[in-house]
Amino acid sequence: MKQINASIITIGDELLIGQTVDTNSAWMARELNKIGIWVKRKVAVGDVWDDIWKALDDESESSDVILITGGLGPTGDDITKPLLCQYFGGRLVVNEQVLEHVKNIFTKLKRPLLERNLKQAEVPDVCTVLFNERGTAPGMMFQNNGKHYFSLPGVPYEMKGLMTSEVLPRLQKDFTLPALVHKTIFTAGQGESFIAEKIKDFESSLPPNIKLAYLPAYGMVRLRLTARGDTLSRVEAELASYFNQLKELVKDIMVSDEDEGLEIVIGKILKSKGKTIATAESCTGGYIAHLITSVPGSSNYFMGSVVSYANEVKENILGVSPGTLQTVGAVSEETVRQMVKGTIEKLHVDFAVATSGIMGPDGGTPEKPVGTVWIAAGNKEKTEAVKLFFRFDRERNIELTAHAALNLLRKFILANS
Amino acid sequence: MKQINASIITIGDELLIGQTVDTNSAWMARELNKIGIWVKRKVAVGDVWDDIWKALDDESESSDVILITGGLGPTGDDITKPLLCQYFGGRLVVNEQVLEHVKNIFTKLKRPLLERNLKQAEVPDVCTVLFNERGTAPGMMFQNNGKHYFSLPGVPYEMKGLMTSEVLPRLQKDFTLPALVHKTIFTAGQGESFIAEKIKDFESSLPPNIKLAYLPAYGMVRLRLTARGDTLSRVEAELASYFNQLKELVKDIMVSDEDEGLEIVIGKILKSKGKTIATAESCTGGYIAHLITSVPGSSNYFMGSVVSYANEVKENILGVSPGTLQTVGAVSEETVRQMVKGTIEKLHVDFAVATSGIMGPDGGTPEKPVGTVWIAAGNKEKTEAVKLFFRFDRERNIELTAHAALNLLRKFILANS
Repeated sequence: MKQINASIITIGDELLIGQTVDTNSAWMARELNKIGIWVKRKVAVGDVWDDIWKALDDESESSDVILITGGLGPTGDDITKPLLCQYFGGRLVVNEQVLEHVKNIFTKLKRPLLERNLKQAEVPDVCTVLFNERGTAPGMMFQNNGKHYFSLPGVPYEMKGLMTSEVLPRLQKDFTLPALVHKTIFTAGQGESFIAEKIKDFESSLPPNIKLAYLPAYGMVRLRLTARGDTLSRVEAELASYFNQLKELVKDIMVSDEDEGLEIVIGKILKSKGKTIATAESCTGGYIAHLITSVPGSSNYFMGSVVSYANEVKENILGVSPGTLQTVGAVSEETVRQMVKGTIEKLHVDFAVATSGIMGPDGGTPEKPVGTVWIAAGNKEKTEAVKLFFRFDRERNIELTAHAALNLLRKFILANS
Repeated sequence: MKQINASIITIGDELLIGQTVDTNSAWMARELNKIGIWVKRKVAVGDVWDDIWKALDDESESSDVILITGGLGPTGDDITKPLLCQYFGGRLVVNEQVLEHVKNIFTKLKRPLLERNLKQAEVPDVCTVLFNERGTAPGMMFQNNGKHYFSLPGVPYEMKGLMTSEVLPRLQKDFTLPALVHKTIFTAGQGESFIAEKIKDFESSLPPNIKLAYLPAYGMVRLRLTARGDTLSRVEAELASYFNQLKELVKDIMVSDEDEGLEIVIGKILKSKGKTIATAESCTGGYIAHLITSVPGSSNYFMGSVVSYANEVKENILGVSPGTLQTVGAVSEETVRQMVKGTIEKLHVDFAVATSGIMGPDGGTPEKPVGTVWIAAGNKEKTEAVKLFFRFDRERNIELTAHAALNLLRKFILANS
């Protein structure tokens, strides 16, 4: 079976001057992968006629499917549509269905309809219009020399809608696709090199159609196995056997055998045990609560959080002793233990986790330099506290603290319920 | 003056299957831009020998500077170093300084030093080693036909360190670079098309060396002017005049005349007025507190947050009336107003903001469908509440609610202090 390759071209000066982080192409790649299409290259170019044209030429040589996002908005910096029209030898005509749709949207929003909005209903007469329910810019499909080209708006919500309703079903219909399966193990507590050493015999035993990758993130390492073959059931069966071997080899550091964050793992544990949690956050400033509540259904087990940034809040709401704060300070074992205790009492939960630290760039002292962190997790009966030290920038120190705290909480819940 | 173009090549299967969002290249592009280097293309390829080789060939044709990230870790899925060695016709030799550094790091971490870690000290004998203080993988610089190539580790913290200490200073020394200046206005409250209509005469009056771009995000639009020229002072002066015209045209919707988030704008206002804030978050689950505390120095004006996910927490800690919750429910004007009031009283702050809504995918009812949100901002004397409706996924609904709440808070503070 021929491997079907895709290229993703993202268009926009904002990507090249770094004002926008491209999250679209990762999402698109994930969805293409699921249906067995391999993304061979991703290319970002600016709003420059020749550069877009060259990218289309280049990627047409590398790939069977070319997906283009961005450059379809209503403002003057967009040149993608006229360029595609010329590239595929068509002319712009008004599409009545799209025109009706654009008018409806503006009527609903009670906004004046401008000339430039009406322009959005113009499409090249050589394309198949992909109707965009979620916005005013239509998607477009072109075919040329057996290659498929899709042009999609850059707004993530609109792009995702069109991918799901139009692009992916068309690709599955038009191409014969291989089976491609990924399985991921989430580990915590050991570095990439150490894990690699432990599983090196396993790694060298893998057949050529199965690949292993190490993906470190936030002090954890994800181990991903990817298998490729003709039929889904056979690929899944083959992968399952290697996946079980790998699980056995890393069982002491495994957090989950699915590719899911700690906040999802903890949610599943709490749901299965019918327990509740809350967080008391100083240095993480609400980030742990945000991670937990980003999971749909988290209101079943998450009661809330007290972000006690000021010492006064630690005292008044969480009941941390003023004496503790004066003698050993907010960044101390005693304080995080008392924060856990106060949270369990005030929010009536089974488990709580607390953080207090100095995230930088300011606020460090010789005894407690920037990066010093105390975290604690506990229930009514007992509390476990751990001291950490990070040497990164503020953003990363917050992320690492949050993930370490979630992992401490996970282990505490498993050991004490 | 010749324009110096750069290409950024990111290497790694994780980018092509969408398991990782590339944030490195946006940061790199921003830094290159600041010193007057234009990023012409960004390309992502997998851990595939031929694909990396081809990317090097291609980008060497487009650009004067080629930056490569990723593929330098200690594990077996990395092929970048041997490939670069062969591409530039060298052989791998041990670099003593790097070897010493790797050994020191492992001694400090009290981790066993493995054969594969020692391998990190091997570098092509045709490169200039860029010493990586922040990790074990060294950076490398190659020169060929007047082009500069830099290979950097994919870990963001390490990449940033090497860019700052090695890559950018070398580029500034080796190339004659033009002056490039960006200035951005942050607006809220009007759509892209409407703004474009309002400033179309201004836009068409711009000289060819000044470009305008519209960057919509979270219900706001950033307007960016970019000017290019020979000398920094002249470019800045020319841009300043157009920038002032633009500010005048959009003054009624301008949030900031710098490219900075609402959380930074609010922080500056609070610092200048010597006032304090806190948040009471139901549906945003701590995300507003996280945005506020991501700003260094926020402990000067941010006291804390009560994430009252459960109604019990709204009652017990914030003092929301059980009657209100029973009769009109948690997602109501009365509830968010009481949350603001309770937060000001309990956390002793000058201003507070509150959110309550249904973020989805579950929890909607016919009267209050998913996407229904109430937000409020206030001080001791009064409170303003606004009802919103979003029709996106959970993640985006949370982001949009948080930004709308921050903007309401900003306007309330400006109008009431």
